[in-house]
Order: sequence, then structure tokens, then C-alpha cells
Amino acid sequence: MAVGSGVIPELHPVAGIRVGTTSAGVKTPGRPDLVLMELGEQATVAGVFTLNQFCAAPVRICKANLQSDKPRYLVINTGNANAGTGKEGHEDALTCCQAVADHAGVKLEEVLPFSTGVIGEKLPVERITSAVPAAFDALSDNGWLDAASGIMTTDTRPKAYSTQFEYQGQTITFSGISKGAGMIKPNMATMLAYVATDAAVDAELLQQMLKRSADKSFNRVTIDGDTSTNDSCMLIATGASGLNVTETDAELFAVFNNALDDIMLQLAQAIVRDGEGATKFITVSVEQAGSSEEALLAAYAVSHSPLVKTALFASDPNWGRILAAVGYAGIESLDVDALQIYLGDVCIVEDGGRAASYTEEAGQAVMNEEEITIRIVLNRGDVSETVWTTDLSKEYVSINADYRS
Amino acid sequence: MAVGSGVIPELHPVAGIRVGTTSAGVKTPGRPDLVLMELGEQATVAGVFTLNQFCAAPVRICKANLQSDKPRYLVINTGNANAGTGKEGHEDALTCCQAVADHAGVKLEEVLPFSTGVIGEKLPVERITSAVPAAFDALSDNGWLDAASGIMTTDTRPKAYSTQFEYQGQTITFSGISKGAGMIKPNMATMLAYVATDAAVDAELLQQMLKRSADKSFNRVTIDGDTSTNDSCMLIATGASGLNVTETDAELFAVFNNALDDIMLQLAQAIVRDGEGATKFITVSVEQAGSSEEALLAAYAVSHSPLVKTALFASDPNWGRILAAVGYAGIESLDVDALQIYLGDVCIVEDGGRAASYTEEAGQAVMNEEEITIRIVLNRGDVSETVWTTDLSKEYVSINADYRS
Repeated sequence: MAVGSGVIPELHPVAGIRVGTTSAGVKTPGRPDLVLMELGEQATVAGVFTLNQFCAAPVRICKANLQSDKPRYLVINTGNANAGTGKEGHEDALTCCQAVADHAGVKLEEVLPFSTGVIGEKLPVERITSAVPAAFDALSDNGWLDAASGIMTTDTRPKAYSTQFEYQGQTITFSGISKGAGMIKPNMATMLAYVATDAAVDAELLQQMLKRSADKSFNRVTIDGDTSTNDSCMLIATGASGLNVTETDAELFAVFNNALDDIMLQLAQAIVRDGEGATKFITVSVEQAGSSEEALLAAYAVSHSPLVKTALFASDPNWGRILAAVGYAGIESLDVDALQIYLGDVCIVEDGGRAASYTEEAGQAVMNEEEITIRIVLNRGDVSETVWTTDLSKEYVSINADYRS
Repeated sequence: MAVGSGVIPELHPVAGIRVGTTSAGVKTPGRPDLVLMELGEQATVAGVFTLNQFCAAPVRICKANLQSDKPRYLVINTGNANAGTGKEGHEDALTCCQAVADHAGVKLEEVLPFSTGVIGEKLPVERITSAVPAAFDALSDNGWLDAASGIMTTDTRPKAYSTQFEYQGQTITFSGISKGAGMIKPNMATMLAYVATDAAVDAELLQQMLKRSADKSFNRVTIDGDTSTNDSCMLIATGASGLNVTETDAELFAVFNNALDDIMLQLAQAIVRDGEGATKFITVSVEQAGSSEEALLAAYAVSHSPLVKTALFASDPNWGRILAAVGYAGIESLDVDALQIYLGDVCIVEDGGRAASYTEEAGQAVMNEEEITIRIVLNRGDVSETVWTTDLSKEYVSINADYRS
């Protein structure tokens, strides 16, 4: 199941980066599961990573290599997370990097490794290193769509997006891919996502831009509240266009960040729309909060409540469950008589209880939609936060109970 | 579904309290749904209540009346929570109390009201007040088992327990009932529970005893992480035995608290065993933690993880999901190489990854059991905490998606 059409727009090549996908047979023979990205020498790279303390070996290596060297290659395998694998897992990830480095004639530290899939099983290193030459052969300017398929695990469809903007007669391009689809939770760089642009951006500034944008996109989506050991979100500025983005040129800085936010949000929401067992796409918007923290407490309490999520699955306007979730969110000194809760445009809660104007028919009409907005107006300040999530279906339980993922 | 036999032991009468159950037809005609408890004049009463800020009208009234007066009656209806009902709900709860007060010739403030069931629907006051005389007629020393049925909502079976201890030739009795079975989460007095003893205990001391005991029982069970608007746990000391429990008599104080902990834990665990859709009873024990707070972070991260819970439902020893949950629990500066995780007696994680001695067969053997202990040894201190929970089954989703509860 998934919500929406999942149609992928035309994916523009990004000058300065080539992408290649092949099959290493990590888990399933013949399935595309190994993706290689080759960056030009002038590219800068930023990354945000899982906050899970059991973070996987490749995540640790990525962080270290990003500190020490300028990346030239990213190598991504699906089918095995290489997490919970101890020292052996660390060595295995390094061996994969070395195979790429040897083939390209670069340093090991110029290769960033990524893995996704089952936790705690030994990485089949031989299969991956043997497939490295084929990944190099596959490198292409037009490799994005294949790569979107090549990083999938329980995703039901590839996720990719592309956007361009014009600046002083020059076209700047963003293309990117992401994958979900369970173990997704806020307060981290969620899942795997790779976005590239042909603008030039200083590495430090690029990192700030990525962090800010991720906090409004990948860090605001949640499916089951579980935080993976492997999640990584990478932003690559190849610089091949020659256009340098700095804070000094405020206009360019603004349009660049807008385009970045656009592609990041599209890729993040695509993960939610393809969330495990998802039948609904839910926007939880908290307005007039006293702080970002309390807005997020309310948004995540509603987004994570199994009772709210099962009611959404059933298209049941059981507004009492939403009210209860806001009530236990942990907002200090909450005046329940002063807030309003809306389902779409329908006010469901005011004056501490069911809104006088509420009718079951009006609530049901909103619930029947595939995309639903829950709006919580706290009347405590002027801060807003938005979180995107899914319902909780029998299919979610089936996917996670019936298969080892 | 439920875990274990659910056999209820012999329920001893508690001198000084009579219990009566009748049908008011709150939601379903003929179903027992109204319970009355009558306390002798010397009884003391303690209560702990939901921390949900949208707490129901009866909860607010209970708290106020407990402050102002000595309770003589408790009146409990199922089928309607009288929560999210605003000022009208408050008036409705008072009307029910008044009906009991009028019939008994006591003050309204000497009656404590409780409601459980659907949120946000108007309480059918007339039906309840009309049934009050029948509830008085039903008052009996042996009314506990009927009452256990009379407070059920989506529970599949009644929950009751009784225990006695001897002290200097005198027998002291505890009897109690509880109900679940969803919307259950820690950090609160969970769901409805009523425990009575014929010992005499000063009201202030009784409140301390209840709080301490609830923090090791009802506040340590979780099914879905949702916190209800109505949950209440009441402890009644009728004093009819004449035996006065004080802190001065250390031996009596100790045996009394042990018996209290016994009945509280039995009633709390009975709620978990009958959790919505439960097929497993899970004990999550965190040992050698640096503090109670960090022990509970780990315990609840594992207990609430949908991925861990679906793996438990599938009897799948997917230990990587447990490792991941401990990793994102939020314990500061966690050294993942220093901790061990056990499934039953089988070590699954050590040295930052899968234990060298682990075999899938050994893990599978534990997972096949109906009652499973997950033990997390943090090696950071000497604090232990235990939480009890269930798996997440398709039945849970069905129950909460198919029915309005």
C-alpha cells in the first residue's frame, strides 16, 4: 500500500556527479542493490546522520571520513545494514571502501559507505567488492532513477525528485533520491537520502543549509517512532555550474534554500506516502504554540498514538483519541479550555470538549479523504510546527511480523 | 486474545466495605455497567489519577472531593468515559453523585464518581440515576467478582485478586479489581483499579503507600503508550479489623506493604495479560543503570517500539530491533560496547553487536514462549527497573480500527 500516485518527475542530470547502479546479490540475486556516486574534485558534501547510539559501522566511517577528507565516491548497498556487527562490521565496511578506492585510484578516506537492510547479519563483503567494477561501468549522468530503485528495501516504489531555478540567466539543478519505509522517527536525519546540486557551496555553509532544511523535512516525518541505526541524509554541491552560493548574495541564497527545501520536503514526504502499510497521508500542524518544543510534543503525541493511527486507518472520526493524545503530550500548564482542534476545516474540540458545531457527518467526510490535516491551535504563542505521518494498518503489522527486515 | 489462564483466586470479603453491581444500560441494555462501593465511616481512601490534562469530569470531581471530605461511596459506570464533555459533563457527573448521596443520606462531596468507555459522548444521566436504587439493593460483602465484570470495557475477562496475611494472630485481608485494556501507558495511575483492606491506615500515610506501590505496578505497565483521560487507582482502608498500620511498627508496616505490592502487581499485570490483542506477556528488565530515569528510558523505548512488538507477535528473534530501540532510547553517552542484552537466558548482544555465543535456535526457543523476559544490562550503576508490556498484533489494529472505543 502507498498513498498518492508516486509519479516521479523528469530527473535532470546534475553536472559534476555520475551515478551507477548494479546488482551485487547482497540478499537477492539479480536485484539492483549497489549504488555508486562519483563526485568531481571540486564537490563539497554535507551529511546528517542517525542519533541512534547503536549507529552502524558505515555511519561511523562516513562521519570520520567527512571530517578528514573531501569525498570523491559514495557507495551504498541495500539488503544488509551492517549494524550491530561490532568490529568485524567495521572492517567489512572499510574493505568495501578500499575496493572502490583501489578501482578509482583515490584514498580510502575519500569514499563514504552506506548500508541499509537487516540489522545484525554479517555483510557479504566478497559479493560487494566483486560487483564494484560493474558499478563503475554503470556510472552515468542519467543514473538517478536506477539508483532510486537500487536503494529500496521494503519500499513499494522508488522515490526521486528534481527541481531547477534560474538565476541571472543561469540554470541551477537539484536532483535527489530517498528511501524509507519503516523505522522512521524524528530528531534525526531519517533514512537514506541523497540530494545533489551543480551550484558551488562552501562545505561549512552546505552543512548548515542541510541541517536547517532537514529539520523542516526529514526530521519532521514519522511512521512508527522507531529510529534506525543507519539513517543518513547527504547533500552534494558539485560546483560544476560555476555559480557560487554564499550568504552575501541574499537573493541567490534565498532562492537556493527555497529550491533545497522543495526537494528535501518532496523526498521526505515521499517516504511517508510509501510508509509501511500506509493508507493515509496525515499532516499534523500545531499552531500558536509557546515554543517549538511544545508544538512538537503535541504533534508527535498525535502522530505516534496507536489509537489515533488505527482510527485514521478505519476512517473513524474518533476525535476523543486526538483530544486524549494532546492531553498527555506533556505540555506544561496546558489550558484545555483555551485550545481548538480541527480535522481538516472541521472544528472538533473547543471549550474543553467536543465543539458545539461538530457533527459526525462533517467529521466523517474529512476522514474519508486519503490526505488529512489535523490542526491543533494551542493559543499560547506564535510558533508553528508541522509533522507528517501515516495511519497504522493491519498491513503494517503483517509487513513487520511476517518478514525479517 | 489474552495471555495466561486468567483464573481468579478466591475473593475474600473485606470487612467495612460492601460492593454492588447492576445494569444501567449505559451503552448496552442488560450488561452489568454500574458498580457501587459503600465504605464504613472510619474508612480512609487514597487515589492516584491520570496525568492527562484533558482529564475527565469524574476525575476532577474525585480529586476535589478527596480533598474536602471523607468518602462514603464510590460510583463507577462503564460504557461512557464522560471525558471531553466540557461543563455539561461536569454537571452530569455531579448529578450521578447527588443521586447516590440522596439515596444514602450523605453529602454529595462524600461520593466519588468514576467513568470509563468512549470519550466525548454525553453521559446518559437518567439511565444511571434510575439504576442507583438497584445498585444499593445489590450491595454485598461478596460483590467483588460481579464488580470486576461490571467495570470491564474491551477487557476480555474480569480481573480480581485477593490476599491475606497474619499479624500477631490477626488476619488482614486485601481484595481488589482492575480493568484495562487499551490506552495504557506509564507515568500515571493506569486505568481503573480498586483495592480495599480491612486494616486501618491514616489517610496521608495511605496516599504515600499507594503512590509508592503504584510506581512499581500500575505505573510500570504499558500496552500502546496511550494515556487515558480517566484512569484512576483507589486504595481503601476500612479499618474494620481494628489493626492500625503505622510507620512506627516497622514489622507490620513491612508485611502490609508487601501484601499491598502483591495485589497491586497482580492486578496491574492482569491488565497487561488482557491487553488489546495480546498474545505475549513481556517483562522488560533494565539492570545496572546509572539512574531510574535512564533505566526507564531503555525499558520504555523497547516496550513501545512497534518493530520490537511486531517481532514479538511473530515470535521472531529479531534481536537487531531490540538493539536499535536501546540505541535510540536517549541515554546520554551510552557505551554500546559495554552493555549486554538477553532474551530470556540467551545473551543476544555484547561488544556492540550480536553475541558470539548467540544462535538463532536459542533465540527462537525463547521467542516461542508465551511469557518472555528481555533483560538489558547497562553496566553503568546499580539501579534496576522493570516494565511489563505486550506484543503488537493484527488483532490490536482490528480492535481499535473496527470498533469505536
